[in-house]
Amino acid sequence: MQTYSQPADIHAAIRNARRQGQTIGCVPTMGALHAGHASLIERARSECSCVVATIFVNPTQFGPSEDFSRYPRTLDADLDICRRAGADIVFTPAVSDMYSPNAETIVRVKDISTILEGAHRPGHFDGVTTVVSKLFLITEPDRAYFGQKDFQQQLIIRRMVRDLNFPVEIITCPIIREPDGLAMSSRNRYLTTEERRTATAISQSLWFAESMADQPHAQPVTVQLALTERLNAVPGIELQYAVVACPDTLIQIPAGSRVANAVALVAARVGTTRLLDNHILKFRQ
Amino acid sequence: MQTYSQPADIHAAIRNARRQGQTIGCVPTMGALHAGHASLIERARSECSCVVATIFVNPTQFGPSEDFSRYPRTLDADLDICRRAGADIVFTPAVSDMYSPNAETIVRVKDISTILEGAHRPGHFDGVTTVVSKLFLITEPDRAYFGQKDFQQQLIIRRMVRDLNFPVEIITCPIIREPDGLAMSSRNRYLTTEERRTATAISQSLWFAESMADQPHAQPVTVQLALTERLNAVPGIELQYAVVACPDTLIQIPAGSRVANAVALVAARVGTTRLLDNHILKFRQ
Repeated sequence: MQTYSQPADIHAAIRNARRQGQTIGCVPTMGALHAGHASLIERARSECSCVVATIFVNPTQFGPSEDFSRYPRTLDADLDICRRAGADIVFTPAVSDMYSPNAETIVRVKDISTILEGAHRPGHFDGVTTVVSKLFLITEPDRAYFGQKDFQQQLIIRRMVRDLNFPVEIITCPIIREPDGLAMSSRNRYLTTEERRTATAISQSLWFAESMADQPHAQPVTVQLALTERLNAVPGIELQYAVVACPDTLIQIPAGSRVANAVALVAARVGTTRLLDNHILKFRQ
Repeated sequence: MQTYSQPADIHAAIRNARRQGQTIGCVPTMGALHAGHASLIERARSECSCVVATIFVNPTQFGPSEDFSRYPRTLDADLDICRRAGADIVFTPAVSDMYSPNAETIVRVKDISTILEGAHRPGHFDGVTTVVSKLFLITEPDRAYFGQKDFQQQLIIRRMVRDLNFPVEIITCPIIREPDGLAMSSRNRYLTTEERRTATAISQSLWFAESMADQPHAQPVTVQLALTERLNAVPGIELQYAVVACPDTLIQIPAGSRVANAVALVAARVGTTRLLDNHILKFRQ
């Protein structure tokens, strides 16, 4: 496994691999890797001849009061996980390798970046789409792998790829969960033992939503209301949003509309830690 | 010479050329080609083994009261010029081939897009950088060629390429002029005979600025003032701006600053036609 910190160096290495007929798969991460990231690298390994993982805690996607400086940085452990999961190349740039001091270009996916996570974290998705554009242009992948855990993110990146003609196929991979259901996240390590126990209420509320959706005549709005009430009743959970929305637009499904599929999306604070989860719901027709 | 209207088709053709070891040169245009465009294609021909010209009148870079609908469209003549100048491939998409109805992604180079042309044409450069990003991702060139006539545009595209890590070298080519000095522009064909005569005052004012800059102790601000006064005195010219600025930032050079090089940039209306011109000034040290 080769590691690079300079964009020009990894670009040359990947161009070389491509010239030899290899298919490039890219897994962009912020490090602090866990089994969810490993599953993305393994999926890339199974589909591509050259697997590139990127490890970069991107400052431009953090708000001024967010956890950029304390975000976990575990490079040695990350490289072990990359190696075991089958990465060929790892890109580990410093902030100064990625941004010139007077950088002024942004990539913005307009409407869908301003709702849900975008409403709670203004500017967050501009940071994400800008850095992912840069990573795509540096690594020039045929396929790129993202986790469904960040549902809105993978949708926004799909829009960006479509709108800007990036020659990249976006593969969204299933959420990987702890045995008790908690969606894996680098931020889970912020949780105290008690908070960790409380946090299981989030995934449990999504299974509850799934069983409600499976009832005859279930309506998305009814499920959304029940999901919200259930989470609001849990001590230690500060709900930010719980919605049942169209999986392609993230627009909430209005009362009276019948749909086959929807996505239930939850964001909540547990202590000082912000957690996300989501689940696809199938409604009986 | 091959022509394509579908992004996927031209992308496949160029990927194929690249696989055969070819170097790709791209010349993005809005059609209505003239000798200035031909010089870009010829320059690409001399430096690249596969020359791609794109012809697309991009609606997103026109303001609502601008000339999008009446912008000259001369496809047959354009293809002749492309052929004679040495293009291998021409991309002629329709608007619907380039933009899905619900496209919502923009590429924005922030500060420098809001001054000069950006101040007179709000949103113009967002349209330019977004469509050029798309054209770069569709044609994946090693080098792309732009005219110095649109000085701010080539500078903004250079910033974008640097900031987003586009693997493209930007080549800026000299302004091509009519025998009487008027900078070639697709919009010159809007001019009446009398306006055409009036318009020569613009390039003449730039030669005047050049000779002023060449005087001992000449100051950029003095040249800018004289340039402005001279153009304001020409009947039939409605000056929008005349500035003497740093060629890397387009910031006007303050009084008392000594510089070796500056760029004089002029925008003016002649009748209903908006014309641009510019010239590099060398100051004695």
